[in-house]
Amino acid sequence: MSPAPLDPHPDRLFPAEPGVRDIARQLYQQIADAPIISPHGHVPAEWLADDTPFSDPTTLLLTPDHYTNRMLHAAGGVDLEDLGVPVGTELTEAQARTGFRKLCENWKVLRGTPVQFWFESEFHDVFGVKVRPSAETADQIYDQIADCLTKDEFTPRALYKRFNIEALATTDDPCSDLSAHRKLAEDPTWDGRVVPTFRPDAYLEPARAGWRDLTENLAGVTDVDIVDYRSHVEAMRTRRLFFKEQGAVSTDHSHSDAGTARLSDAQADRFFQEALRGTISPSDGDALRRHMLNDQARLACDDGLVMTLHPAVYRNHDSATLQRFGADVGGDVPHTVEFTRALQPMLDAYGNAEGFHLVVFTMDETTFSRELAPLAGWYRGMFVGAPWWFIDEADAIMRYRRAVTGYAGFSKTSGFIDDTRAYCSIPARHDVARRVDSGFLANLVAEHRLTFDEAAETAVDLVSTQPRKVFKL
Amino acid sequence: MSPAPLDPHPDRLFPAEPGVRDIARQLYQQIADAPIISPHGHVPAEWLADDTPFSDPTTLLLTPDHYTNRMLHAAGGVDLEDLGVPVGTELTEAQARTGFRKLCENWKVLRGTPVQFWFESEFHDVFGVKVRPSAETADQIYDQIADCLTKDEFTPRALYKRFNIEALATTDDPCSDLSAHRKLAEDPTWDGRVVPTFRPDAYLEPARAGWRDLTENLAGVTDVDIVDYRSHVEAMRTRRLFFKEQGAVSTDHSHSDAGTARLSDAQADRFFQEALRGTISPSDGDALRRHMLNDQARLACDDGLVMTLHPAVYRNHDSATLQRFGADVGGDVPHTVEFTRALQPMLDAYGNAEGFHLVVFTMDETTFSRELAPLAGWYRGMFVGAPWWFIDEADAIMRYRRAVTGYAGFSKTSGFIDDTRAYCSIPARHDVARRVDSGFLANLVAEHRLTFDEAAETAVDLVSTQPRKVFKL
Amino acid sequence: MSPAPLDPHPDRLFPAEPGVRDIARQLYQQIADAPIISPHGHVPAEWLADDTPFSDPTTLLLTPDHYTNRMLHAAGGVDLEDLGVPVGTELTEAQARTGFRKLCENWKVLRGTPVQFWFESEFHDVFGVKVRPSAETADQIYDQIADCLTKDEFTPRALYKRFNIEALATTDDPCSDLSAHRKLAEDPTWDGRVVPTFRPDAYLEPARAGWRDLTENLAGVTDVDIVDYRSHVEAMRTRRLFFKEQGAVSTDHSHSDAGTARLSDAQADRFFQEALRGTISPSDGDALRRHMLNDQARLACDDGLVMTLHPAVYRNHDSATLQRFGADVGGDVPHTVEFTRALQPMLDAYGNAEGFHLVVFTMDETTFSRELAPLAGWYRGMFVGAPWWFIDEADAIMRYRRAVTGYAGFSKTSGFIDDTRAYCSIPARHDVARRVDSGFLANLVAEHRLTFDEAAETAVDLVSTQPRKVFKL
Repeated sequence: MSPAPLDPHPDRLFPAEPGVRDIARQLYQQIADAPIISPHGHVPAEWLADDTPFSDPTTLLLTPDHYTNRMLHAAGGVDLEDLGVPVGTELTEAQARTGFRKLCENWKVLRGTPVQFWFESEFHDVFGVKVRPSAETADQIYDQIADCLTKDEFTPRALYKRFNIEALATTDDPCSDLSAHRKLAEDPTWDGRVVPTFRPDAYLEPARAGWRDLTENLAGVTDVDIVDYRSHVEAMRTRRLFFKEQGAVSTDHSHSDAGTARLSDAQADRFFQEALRGTISPSDGDALRRHMLNDQARLACDDGLVMTLHPAVYRNHDSATLQRFGADVGGDVPHTVEFTRALQPMLDAYGNAEGFHLVVFTMDETTFSRELAPLAGWYRGMFVGAPWWFIDEADAIMRYRRAVTGYAGFSKTSGFIDDTRAYCSIPARHDVARRVDSGFLANLVAEHRLTFDEAAETAVDLVSTQPRKVFKL
Repeated sequence: MSPAPLDPHPDRLFPAEPGVRDIARQLYQQIADAPIISPHGHVPAEWLADDTPFSDPTTLLLTPDHYTNRMLHAAGGVDLEDLGVPVGTELTEAQARTGFRKLCENWKVLRGTPVQFWFESEFHDVFGVKVRPSAETADQIYDQIADCLTKDEFTPRALYKRFNIEALATTDDPCSDLSAHRKLAEDPTWDGRVVPTFRPDAYLEPARAGWRDLTENLAGVTDVDIVDYRSHVEAMRTRRLFFKEQGAVSTDHSHSDAGTARLSDAQADRFFQEALRGTISPSDGDALRRHMLNDQARLACDDGLVMTLHPAVYRNHDSATLQRFGADVGGDVPHTVEFTRALQPMLDAYGNAEGFHLVVFTMDETTFSRELAPLAGWYRGMFVGAPWWFIDEADAIMRYRRAVTGYAGFSKTSGFIDDTRAYCSIPARHDVARRVDSGFLANLVAEHRLTFDEAAETAVDLVSTQPRKVFKL
Repeated sequence: MSPAPLDPHPDRLFPAEPGVRDIARQLYQQIADAPIISPHGHVPAEWLADDTPFSDPTTLLLTPDHYTNRMLHAAGGVDLEDLGVPVGTELTEAQARTGFRKLCENWKVLRGTPVQFWFESEFHDVFGVKVRPSAETADQIYDQIADCLTKDEFTPRALYKRFNIEALATTDDPCSDLSAHRKLAEDPTWDGRVVPTFRPDAYLEPARAGWRDLTENLAGVTDVDIVDYRSHVEAMRTRRLFFKEQGAVSTDHSHSDAGTARLSDAQADRFFQEALRGTISPSDGDALRRHMLNDQARLACDDGLVMTLHPAVYRNHDSATLQRFGADVGGDVPHTVEFTRALQPMLDAYGNAEGFHLVVFTMDETTFSRELAPLAGWYRGMFVGAPWWFIDEADAIMRYRRAVTGYAGFSKTSGFIDDTRAYCSIPARHDVARRVDSGFLANLVAEHRLTFDEAAETAVDLVSTQPRKVFKL
């Protein structure tokens, strides 16, 4: 028996009702080929700076993609080592092939998930695969992709062009010298746009192990003598400006809650001195972190960097996996989050300030209609971020539009972000959002809530005007 | 180029699938012209008592409508002053015209929101506007509406008739003399029904600034010497009866939580004495307030007034706006709410009592299936309120029916409330609910879960039987 | 006028769009007649062991079904006594007839609820009723069902065969001698499978009234001298093994929260000694209960019993009803629940252990996409339970699939459970899940997210492979 074909349908993800699908198809045609704006993600800038060809399918497609890793792990029978985790592990050809086989053998467990959609799209559209992954087809697909990777059209830069990326943001440590970004900027043969993002989380957690080393490093990099709270802010200000000079448009923040309550100056400094001595308690550390986050907003009003927030994830939930593979390989789990009270101090101070932009992402979908849309429906600088991470799939994107649009409309939403380490999935991920938004808008047209011309203009706005405006790109 | 037409489609908001739409249309035809029952809202009774013609489109349509104000504010470029906020501001013709222009210029930001739907309906159906609002058409539409407002058919009473309103509830301070309601009652030329609603929130917050003045005023109005907790309840009882005599059918309550825990009599009185002295702490004030709310239910069992509850809004989130314009102009934001434990003391005592009716509204949609439907599915006096305020739009109304019906059916839901200050939007708001309920029921018929005759009877129940029964109208 | 017919449509619950409905119908045909696997429910094993004919329609269909009881109570006009509550009440023929009449008279209040669907299916399919319940048809339907119950084809065992049940789990006290299960096992004429479930809730609540008596009883039954924490665990281990020997495949747990935090051994024993003395505080009792639950997982790793968890219900919310009728007759209400942090200690220790299975049920739907799917999408032993109790109806099952599939796919979900005391509704309840899953999968096919062959295989998996795998049946 010949293997089942892999043949993604041109109408996939559009609503099933024929009339609505026709409208969706028309809307989608206007945006299907629009340039990709990716204002939040995790592709290493080095890939593009060095333009080294990718080594093998597994290292490229599986190792860095914790979406896939998690699902294969959960299904049983696959260990993270099989997939080349952690990033940086050198795989022999045999190991890489075996890892890739694990994906194909477990293809069924991905059914109905976005991971299936992404792989189907990238296998087919990027690498020309025409058979459905399975134990039988694993080697054939592996060989086909491995063969592609030896060609000039599949280097990081060639794919950047082919993917039609207009701007790609990375995520970077405040002390990073951004050498890859600078290398790109100085390369006359490169005309893409890869911008860094300032991610100071660890520097704003004064009660966490390692904070004092980070602070010492920060002092070294900035030449600021960090002896009190004020000098810490000054060091932050300095690095934010350095990032901005290297093209950054935003700062990114993720803590266990969204709190932004201020302390008195004296209290902040008292806590800061304890942090420097290593004696601050966890709860005082949280209080100081909330104060620091509030001050990031103040700095944002000055330097114009957009602030993005995506709190409330229990990191490294599975301690054995953390010990074995380090952070960011899978064991993170969302939990409830509260925004209305938590963001009040920051929004009250800066929410309507000229040039201040705050984009709030959530994995607690309950906050969309209850908190985020109402906040964005009042404060000028506040935008509701698109579904992200655990919920960046078709149904969740549809729920997001249904939950947010009634109160905040379209103009207070961020546009899609892919947030990915899986470079080759970027077009597929943006394509999901474009298809679902087209379907959502098509429904509004079919229900006579928008005219077609209104919907068509909105479809274009969502992939171009909005991300450019919100992220100042 | 001639401007885009404004031409609301007769099938708007109906499901797109042709078979379901046909059923929805048939169901809707039976209720489209049913009288409007509006048991909760904020239109001033004075408008109908005095029947003074409306001054200008902006003061009528924009100034009192915080839905619109918020969205225009959030979009940037519009200040609340431009829209005549706060209510009572006298606008020159030029100012009114400029404010109205702001709406039309920002028409796009309303896309996909109910505000767009409401304006499209009222512009077209009430004022005969035939062009889509835009910078180009702003003056033309303003002139057309302004011209209408000079005519006899557009006085408050003429519109009341034209809107086919059967009953309209206002929201009133317990110390109000309800003079406008009495004037209407005594007017032999008036045959409508405008009933007051007893809203004692501020009188039940003993730790809030101003409570002692309110209490003194309450004592004066009732001739009750308020010296202890018992006499305060007596004063409340007196005013509730006065409201009932003036036609009130319900009392309305909104606090930061839904708590109804009782204190011992001694504890209640101890807290009350501290409140009278102005020394009660905020947390004791909350505890006393929960006790007081519990006692409102006891009074309701005696006088039969329906109790409505809509807790959990962070009021005046934006302090600069509060200082500049006062309360109720926009900066309110919902947050999570808990009902199962909070309402237990009150429901345990009165939930099955003869004649006790409690309607609970929420903006935390998570409570619909988890708490409110199960509570209403047991306690005889408990009803689940319709979506309201931030969530009174088509998609949220559909979500409400989908979340509540499976457990509580239709007979334990309140019927739609418009809760509006925007008088001319009342028909459009009720029309949204009628259309969405028709669509919801049509789906049940199309999926063979109800027969057509069952659905048709239910459609009528939802606009007539239910609100009359639940609100004792 | 002849009464309205009762004629359930073959396409009921399928999506309305004709193309999707066709696909749903094809998928459903493959599973409509599949054997019923019921791994969690409350039908008494005695019914099947004794095979005594059922006495009357009311005692069989209404008395044990708290879904129906609640809704009729909430509608007003029906008291629980009318329906034969509590279970065990002997009804005269006149009383039984009157109770049944209450259902028919109030038929309208069930509209749009699953109770309507279940009754329509069982009346029609099991008892051959052809008229819609109403005041007029009540006696006719009662007589028809009563007549059936006198026949051999309607004994408990005959219905078990007719319902095509492959396995049926009961819920049992750890000290139960499981005599009915043993009687069935020893009966050569019985070839069905009725397995007990170990439900130790009350034994794990050391601060609750009655715990000391239960513990004394447990000591007696196990012959373990329960003098410290360790011996209590040993007694538990013993009874779990006894249950396993009698065919049990799972243990079932329901507490007010999902906490599994461990205490130190010394602390656990200190609390245990206080519990034995009756002096443990409620909060220490909760802490000890969480520790005990954690240890149930350890025992599960040893004996292989599947662990099911369904926390967060406020039991006996209405105290007057509790006093009059006892527990489990209606007054239970769900509330919010937290899993990410609560389950961490247990999952961190056992979540990936060989053979450990944990199925988590919730009535707080917000946890599906935020917590449960992400947890099941990492830990190998964790599965997301199907909607249950207040949310086991068509719309909620559809929401569950939409919320869970994107992250956890199908292979980490439990399969449907009926959780019912209403024996004759078992086929109808499983039929709802099969229809809705068929509709969900049909939509994925129609939107080109799955091929038809993938969907067909998945449909079968959901009614066979998954429940067998997850519950080790």
